[in-house]
Amino acid sequence: MFFRYNWLVRAEWYKWCEGISEEDLLCRRTGGVGSILETLFHIVDVEWSWIRVLQGKTDFEESFENYNTLQKVRQLDAEFRLEVESFVNNWNDSMEHRILSDTMPDGKIVEDTWGEVIRHTIAHEIHHIGQLSIWARELGEKPVSANVIGRGLADKTKEIMDGHITSGDVADIHN
Amino acid sequence: MFFRYNWLVRAEWYKWCEGISEEDLLCRRTGGVGSILETLFHIVDVEWSWIRVLQGKTDFEESFENYNTLQKVRQLDAEFRLEVESFVNNWNDSMEHRILSDTMPDGKIVEDTWGEVIRHTIAHEIHHIGQLSIWARELGEKPVSANVIGRGLADKTKEIMDGHITSGDVADIHN
Repeated sequence: MFFRYNWLVRAEWYKWCEGISEEDLLCRRTGGVGSILETLFHIVDVEWSWIRVLQGKTDFEESFENYNTLQKVRQLDAEFRLEVESFVNNWNDSMEHRILSDTMPDGKIVEDTWGEVIRHTIAHEIHHIGQLSIWARELGEKPVSANVIGRGLADKTKEIMDGHITSGDVADIHN
Repeated sequence: MFFRYNWLVRAEWYKWCEGISEEDLLCRRTGGVGSILETLFHIVDVEWSWIRVLQGKTDFEESFENYNTLQKVRQLDAEFRLEVESFVNNWNDSMEHRILSDTMPDGKIVEDTWGEVIRHTIAHEIHHIGQLSIWARELGEKPVSANVIGRGLADKTKEIMDGHITSGDVADIHN
């Protein structure tokens, strides 16, 4: 549900960007990755990159320079979405505790479970969208709603999960 | 895992606040709920309120005026945490698709599943923490890390989930 939430909110931010000048979309701002459009590019890039990492595939090496228009970011998102959505839709219980070894910038090797990585990817977008909401207000604009409720996100889930109800996010907090 | 993540990150923000003047913590800023400390109060208040709503209990009616110091917010958090943690720890599969009827500000009645509400509560905090990260940079300070990975969040889960592995967040995105 969180991935679908993120994709819906992201689509609304793209729509929101249509009403903002290119100058404002690219303007360097304090905090985050620096501009509204680069934040959206970064979200798309990072989501895809983690999915690639989990699959043991090579990462994306392009820079924002080549994707600095709303249209280009949307196009990149559409291309990446195919692979991300396929991975997410094929998630199964056995993947939750698989280990990913990762080398940190300081050379230290850390191990994370795939479950941690997938939640990291989810939280990453929500965090950056929170930053966009501040910049929107600085521009005098109303930001996109961050609500999870009221989007009908559960309906489809219910339909699909019939006979296969899971406890979702909070299940793994029995501690 | 997301609740434990949020609580860890929140504790780090409280620690971070110790190094910031009361004036800066209370300063009115653009966007969000307006100030750093009020954001933390709002996060604590909203998390607890949703848990109360799900339980059919009365909500919190206090205003920030009465909780406008770091110490008071931390104390309120500690009080509320007992109930929130108990609810989260007792979550079970049957709760995911229970319906909560909610009256919107415009009087419209909408229905959400408990699963949507619990994810709304999770995303709510991550979103506001993203806003704090911008305000931290505006103060010239380094914000708290928003990383989910590298916190050892999965270890405890693994221990507890032995013999009861769930697929977590991504399970319900089979669509």
